[in-house]
Amino acid sequence: MKHILTMNDLSNEEIYGVLTRAKEWKGKQVPIVQDRPTFVANLFFEPSTRTKMSFEVAEKRLGFNVLDFSPESSSLQKGETLYDTVRTAQAIGASAVVIRHPKEGYYHELVNGVSIPILNGGDGKGEHPSQCLLDLYTIYEEFGTFENVHVVISGDVKHSRVARSNAYALHRLGAEVSLSGPDEWKDNTLPFPYIQIDQAVEQADALMLLRIQNERHAKQVNQSHYLEEHGLTLARERRMKRESIILHPAPVNRGVEMEDELVETKRSRIFTQMENGVYVRMAMLQAALQEGGELDAYTTEEHTHLTK
Amino acid sequence: MKHILTMNDLSNEEIYGVLTRAKEWKGKQVPIVQDRPTFVANLFFEPSTRTKMSFEVAEKRLGFNVLDFSPESSSLQKGETLYDTVRTAQAIGASAVVIRHPKEGYYHELVNGVSIPILNGGDGKGEHPSQCLLDLYTIYEEFGTFENVHVVISGDVKHSRVARSNAYALHRLGAEVSLSGPDEWKDNTLPFPYIQIDQAVEQADALMLLRIQNERHAKQVNQSHYLEEHGLTLARERRMKRESIILHPAPVNRGVEMEDELVETKRSRIFTQMENGVYVRMAMLQAALQEGGELDAYTTEEHTHLTK
Amino acid sequence: MKHILTMNDLSNEEIYGVLTRAKEWKGKQVPIVQDRPTFVANLFFEPSTRTKMSFEVAEKRLGFNVLDFSPESSSLQKGETLYDTVRTAQAIGASAVVIRHPKEGYYHELVNGVSIPILNGGDGKGEHPSQCLLDLYTIYEEFGTFENVHVVISGDVKHSRVARSNAYALHRLGAEVSLSGPDEWKDNTLPFPYIQIDQAVEQADALMLLRIQNERHAKQVNQSHYLEEHGLTLARERRMKRESIILHPAPVNRGVEMEDELVETKRSRIFTQMENGVYVRMAMLQAALQEGGELDAYTTEEHTHLTK
Repeated sequence: MKHILTMNDLSNEEIYGVLTRAKEWKGKQVPIVQDRPTFVANLFFEPSTRTKMSFEVAEKRLGFNVLDFSPESSSLQKGETLYDTVRTAQAIGASAVVIRHPKEGYYHELVNGVSIPILNGGDGKGEHPSQCLLDLYTIYEEFGTFENVHVVISGDVKHSRVARSNAYALHRLGAEVSLSGPDEWKDNTLPFPYIQIDQAVEQADALMLLRIQNERHAKQVNQSHYLEEHGLTLARERRMKRESIILHPAPVNRGVEMEDELVETKRSRIFTQMENGVYVRMAMLQAALQEGGELDAYTTEEHTHLTK
Repeated sequence: MKHILTMNDLSNEEIYGVLTRAKEWKGKQVPIVQDRPTFVANLFFEPSTRTKMSFEVAEKRLGFNVLDFSPESSSLQKGETLYDTVRTAQAIGASAVVIRHPKEGYYHELVNGVSIPILNGGDGKGEHPSQCLLDLYTIYEEFGTFENVHVVISGDVKHSRVARSNAYALHRLGAEVSLSGPDEWKDNTLPFPYIQIDQAVEQADALMLLRIQNERHAKQVNQSHYLEEHGLTLARERRMKRESIILHPAPVNRGVEMEDELVETKRSRIFTQMENGVYVRMAMLQAALQEGGELDAYTTEEHTHLTK
Repeated sequence: MKHILTMNDLSNEEIYGVLTRAKEWKGKQVPIVQDRPTFVANLFFEPSTRTKMSFEVAEKRLGFNVLDFSPESSSLQKGETLYDTVRTAQAIGASAVVIRHPKEGYYHELVNGVSIPILNGGDGKGEHPSQCLLDLYTIYEEFGTFENVHVVISGDVKHSRVARSNAYALHRLGAEVSLSGPDEWKDNTLPFPYIQIDQAVEQADALMLLRIQNERHAKQVNQSHYLEEHGLTLARERRMKRESIILHPAPVNRGVEMEDELVETKRSRIFTQMENGVYVRMAMLQAALQEGGELDAYTTEEHTHLTK
């Protein structure tokens, strides 16, 4: 696998590989004793709490030290290229690098010269594979399968960096996919049917609400209007199927995508998604590093489960 | 104990519990070997060197990994609520959270939904319990008791977030408490006598100087005037009792609250306070996590001293 | 050795001591198991990727925890002196401190009161000893000696904080030193001959290109002009001696000091320098802490190689 850059790069087998390993991590408290200090570098060029912290916990749980390249105090102020920064991380000893960067496809200029695995933590309006994989994991954990699970992805489909890749990945894993949301945010290049939110709540097994990314929109959304027309109100939640679940990548705009009180309602998996994110990212690092042979090199016999 | 939010929440027994454990930590170099990676999240929404670093050392000495949520690079820029940030820290695996926040009483909105211990690292003009406890520790270490120890708290009593809670805690532990400082900074709601600084230096066993918080004052203080009228000059220091000590929460405005040369004078305990702060914070974490049963869960037999 | 502040403070024996230890670190993967948590504080008051990260990796490889005092979130905003910040780091438990600060000779105000080793990570236009030592290491690694190795230091000699100290250190270790660069950046106080870049490429065993520090220059350099007149073009590189090498402290201004394609050419040691920087900084910490007796205190028998 080596680099993990887009969902499309991953075969179904590789996706199931990640989900399976993530489940193993979730089940146990395996003490990982690294026999020497090893490092993963995190390069986050956009604000992030969840993704950055989640990768950090995943890295530390696997026994890595974390090198935190924060742009505000780095040589990027001196005009250094991303390539040179990543090569620096490699030169001083990083075994892998996780990057979030505002430029879509930033990794194209990296993959030739960089010899450590790159994990894409989000590339502008491009992709966000670890978010997709944790969404998949949470659905798979709930239903034990993707076959005939009806997932409705609702909201700002056009600007989301998970909607598109989630939709395609879910589809090829056997799920039924529908979309929902305001007309101006429709993405008509996607071959999946659009339904109204009032249908969606009745039909969905998993209702995946997307975040309205105010920071990416020029004009502000009329927020109370959005909840009424397209969001998850208390009334709509009551009409959802008995076993259905709610997903949201967070942070939630409370009172916009969904009613405040629903964030921690029984069928909400929002904080479960965050917890699962750690296990999924551990599995991603594992997959990326095994391919490169790196993880073998510094594991001791006690944790050969890592290399199985 | 669980959360540690205000001094008033702590009984005398709980305070002595923290002081006793802190003393144990100070005396020995106990190797804490965590049997799996564990995490404490630090959320500091105001500048801090001392408190943040001190908690970080305390956490790492107890074997925790530290998750550093720095606001400048976090989703708080996306308008996320404090509650959601703390729930995120919990979801991704933090065993406890230390918070400094400019809003007085910020924790009221947290205590219902958050199930990990919250340690208050300072809430605006509210409280700063770890600073109080390290002040108490330093006095207790010096005199072996609070009974009949005369503590004079001197300076900006009105705006200080430690003066009030220190005064009450010292009083109920048996100390004699007086206040000192300029008229405009008197807090007449406190039932303790005001004395002039020239009396204070002669009467105090512990002279607790408060920091002038320029960053909280609209109009600047006339600094040289302050030292002359209310601060600790060289002449005043010479009139202090033989065994008396000087405390200051730091950073000192050198030449304002006290003469430059006095910061490291023999009776100054300013850097001792900083050192003690680490042990006190270790004891606070221990107290908070034992109540919640968390520390039991991940300690091994070798360090059962933690759970005794 | 204790503090490592300027190259001039180091005897030839001490320099060789660092180079020898660095080589030992490079050769092996020694598991350092600290028997209790220990700390090094990093205080970087100027942007830095390479130096800060490299020290961090060095510290963690030696088993230290790292305390990161970042100025943007520290009490320095409250006007605290550097001295008080460093004393704070010491009080809360740091065994050593690495400082980068814009003020030349910042350490003069520290050395009397601070009792832990200070490693200079760069003082304004002053010195940058860890960069010098890694340059020396990389040359020594290549040629096995400094005797009769011709090193040409080329570029902004006047404003560089490594040119001067590198030149003197190389000279007293037996190397032949020449300088090169535009007239306006000549430093005529240095007793070394100036040669043109076209001579330099033919004569140098090691061509040490200096970074044009745009952030320190008031007027911008005419960049393409600089490459043509004084930089390493493709044509010039082809005229270099067969076994000669290229050094650059990085980050490279690609297309200014050197042609883009040459950054990773066969004779370039730029990324090797970065890798070596970690081992050199491990050796510096070791040297500084042994003198202070600190490293002895917390090493266990398994790694007595540290104290040999």
